[in-house]
Amino acid sequence: MTGNSLKSYSEVYGEIDLAILDLKHLLGENLVISTAVRKQHGGGEVTYHQNMPPDAVAFATSTAQVSEIVKICAKHVVPIIPYGAGSSLEGQVSAIKGGICIDLSAMNQVIQVNAADLDVTVGAGLTRQELNIYLRDSGLFFPIDPGAEATLAGMAATRASGTNAVRYGTMRDNVINMTVVMPNGEIIKTGGRAKKSAAGYDLARLLIGSEGTLGIITELTLKLYGIPEKILSAVCSFDSIKQACEAVILTIQTGVPVARIELLDEIQVGACNSYSKLSLEVKPTLFIEFHGSENYCAEQVEMFKDIAAEYGSDDFKAAAKTEQRNVLWKARHDAYWAGCDLAPGLAHLSTDVCVPISNFADCVTQTKQDIIDSGLIGPIVGHAGDGNFHVLLSFDENSAEDNKKMQHFLDRLAARALHYEGTCTGEHGIGLGKAKYMFAEHGAGVNYMFAIKQALDPDNIMNPGKIFYG
Amino acid sequence: MTGNSLKSYSEVYGEIDLAILDLKHLLGENLVISTAVRKQHGGGEVTYHQNMPPDAVAFATSTAQVSEIVKICAKHVVPIIPYGAGSSLEGQVSAIKGGICIDLSAMNQVIQVNAADLDVTVGAGLTRQELNIYLRDSGLFFPIDPGAEATLAGMAATRASGTNAVRYGTMRDNVINMTVVMPNGEIIKTGGRAKKSAAGYDLARLLIGSEGTLGIITELTLKLYGIPEKILSAVCSFDSIKQACEAVILTIQTGVPVARIELLDEIQVGACNSYSKLSLEVKPTLFIEFHGSENYCAEQVEMFKDIAAEYGSDDFKAAAKTEQRNVLWKARHDAYWAGCDLAPGLAHLSTDVCVPISNFADCVTQTKQDIIDSGLIGPIVGHAGDGNFHVLLSFDENSAEDNKKMQHFLDRLAARALHYEGTCTGEHGIGLGKAKYMFAEHGAGVNYMFAIKQALDPDNIMNPGKIFYG
Repeated sequence: MTGNSLKSYSEVYGEIDLAILDLKHLLGENLVISTAVRKQHGGGEVTYHQNMPPDAVAFATSTAQVSEIVKICAKHVVPIIPYGAGSSLEGQVSAIKGGICIDLSAMNQVIQVNAADLDVTVGAGLTRQELNIYLRDSGLFFPIDPGAEATLAGMAATRASGTNAVRYGTMRDNVINMTVVMPNGEIIKTGGRAKKSAAGYDLARLLIGSEGTLGIITELTLKLYGIPEKILSAVCSFDSIKQACEAVILTIQTGVPVARIELLDEIQVGACNSYSKLSLEVKPTLFIEFHGSENYCAEQVEMFKDIAAEYGSDDFKAAAKTEQRNVLWKARHDAYWAGCDLAPGLAHLSTDVCVPISNFADCVTQTKQDIIDSGLIGPIVGHAGDGNFHVLLSFDENSAEDNKKMQHFLDRLAARALHYEGTCTGEHGIGLGKAKYMFAEHGAGVNYMFAIKQALDPDNIMNPGKIFYG
Repeated sequence: MTGNSLKSYSEVYGEIDLAILDLKHLLGENLVISTAVRKQHGGGEVTYHQNMPPDAVAFATSTAQVSEIVKICAKHVVPIIPYGAGSSLEGQVSAIKGGICIDLSAMNQVIQVNAADLDVTVGAGLTRQELNIYLRDSGLFFPIDPGAEATLAGMAATRASGTNAVRYGTMRDNVINMTVVMPNGEIIKTGGRAKKSAAGYDLARLLIGSEGTLGIITELTLKLYGIPEKILSAVCSFDSIKQACEAVILTIQTGVPVARIELLDEIQVGACNSYSKLSLEVKPTLFIEFHGSENYCAEQVEMFKDIAAEYGSDDFKAAAKTEQRNVLWKARHDAYWAGCDLAPGLAHLSTDVCVPISNFADCVTQTKQDIIDSGLIGPIVGHAGDGNFHVLLSFDENSAEDNKKMQHFLDRLAARALHYEGTCTGEHGIGLGKAKYMFAEHGAGVNYMFAIKQALDPDNIMNPGKIFYG
């Protein structure tokens, strides 16, 4: 270890005005300094973190242009914040030291579909929904679904996962290759298109989850999958959250290859009934999906029904038609908004942790009790098959007491997840919000992450203040 | 980038004698300097690289002890070479600058099986076969099978994969957590036991495939899988290698979830018939395995048979009994020795490349022609479902002409794989043998790998000269 540390927030970066002058020359009207646009890029749509606008927003249209922008920022030593859809939840796009936001949303091309290899190369700004719409007639799809209308590069940068991860893995598992602009403006590729490689350090996996602190992903080659012959969704309710969790655990342990298995506690079910006009029984509920051939799906359903019955559930209801299935998953996607509707007028915060599945029931049950004990409003919804769950907290952001209560709850939640050999975040990432848990989770490992950051970005211009404290 | 470079081979490390003195004090008889033991650790069993023995071999028994050994080596600035089973193929264990070999084979404990979470924590020196024997009665297994009796830490360090990777992924996908001794002797863990995490840089994935150049893996938590209800193996031959490859491609594209799909060219089939006393038709042949329920296996078999028939094969033969299945896969595992038997008295070299599956048939066909045109003996065997194949070259190591011919063939093979958007190694790793292809494959990306190496191991004591030149 070098013993040096990254530049602290308070250290002075270079002259932002000079950088803006050079960028204006390069980009013309694609460099925007209006307050509205800067503010729009200073915080996510649904993040609770304070909006901290950049000094300017550069709308990039190509990898070469991103490289030029980064070179200018590097020359003037000003911070760079990559921006896709702004759907991250932990303040990943806040310009806490000002600087230049690089908006990649115009780089939304589908560059090449290799159907024969089950892969596709896309621009950074393409969203997963746009990709799947594009692929509609090809019989292929990209399964990773974090809920939000996120860009694929943003999903890679935050190691996103979501409802399908239990079957298809996370972004970690589904990126084959990336084009990345490094902190000095150099353009690299992390690999070829082979399904595997043992050639040197895995730069792709290092960049996935690095939240823009090591480089800017401008293109990605992603794995695709054949759309299953049969997709069968279902709901199934339980008398207690513990029974629902236990059913999930046994499903995973038995090896039933569920494509999705989502837990909603009774508070969340009530919220979804109200927001999405459903009429589910207000009990802890699983939303499940099976993928496969007709027979294989039927086999999975039978196995799952036996397990559910073992934990006292006898109301397994299949959504036979595509429309019914869509209603169900639309409601699941809207769970955030449904939860917000429980406490209109308040601020909302979505947090997540992830634990080994054997500890899932205990961790969820204790968290639920903690919510009650704390007098908080907080529905729970989770990617149960991965041991990953979310709490949506509603609070008065102007109340010091509410803020303190909420913060203490978050600290206990992170500590509980670590106690259960889990992680302080399964999929939302660290950003600003969870940097304080990094040492608790990784111990001395943080120093090595830090050494890597310093080696690749010695001036700390890439999304400074994220992941690491200052 | 810092602009500095790693220490070159020719730079002087510290005093090895002083390190040995300190290590003798620490380890007593577990520090061995006999020529036989040093030579035994200076090269792999089946590698063609020159045996380069370390100055001493330290037999470690715990993570804490590895840490002490590394601290002594760091203090005296002497090279460290971690050693598991010595089954790597590209000179990964050669002590090209001398130094201390740390033999981890005694750290072969199964530390904890978490059947409920489908994971197991093991010591670095446990082999995959030992693990599976231990798990025998649990209904669980660890699928990654590189063929050799490799240690699990060695498999992680080289990002190993093998026959089952088409279904279960590689070591990249199957390591949950690792305990690692860093170049300064500090002990870190790369994560918890949750199935996924978005908390900071993915140190585990960085260390997997780093071939001992960044740290020493001393413990691993690995994913386990339920032993399938039904395992069905089969063989199936084709009139041409191209037809066999095309059948594989369509199998993968169709989404038949084969657990193994191995290609043997007719030369390899002949060699296996002779070595393993089989009576297979001497034609390009696929060894296939299906995992699943009784019905699901039957469904997969029917799909595969249709595909094979489409490419002119009508001799699909299932190995109904476990004994038959074992004979088949034993023969596949012994393919290396069978290939060697084709040219007794010569030296042998196993190399591998990996390409996108759509380019597999072309790459294999052209490589086969190249072997013929070069007058080489070289059976081909491959993890076809991943686009990964091996050539076993036999040559007279004392003939300059043979060495040159062989080296030129290897250069063309790597170039061909890169031309087809693949990698110069799918699973054997870089070691010494393929360092010269790193820039061709990664371009400027190598500089960033190099910067990481320098940041974590500034004195270049960790397995120097591997992966990177110089």
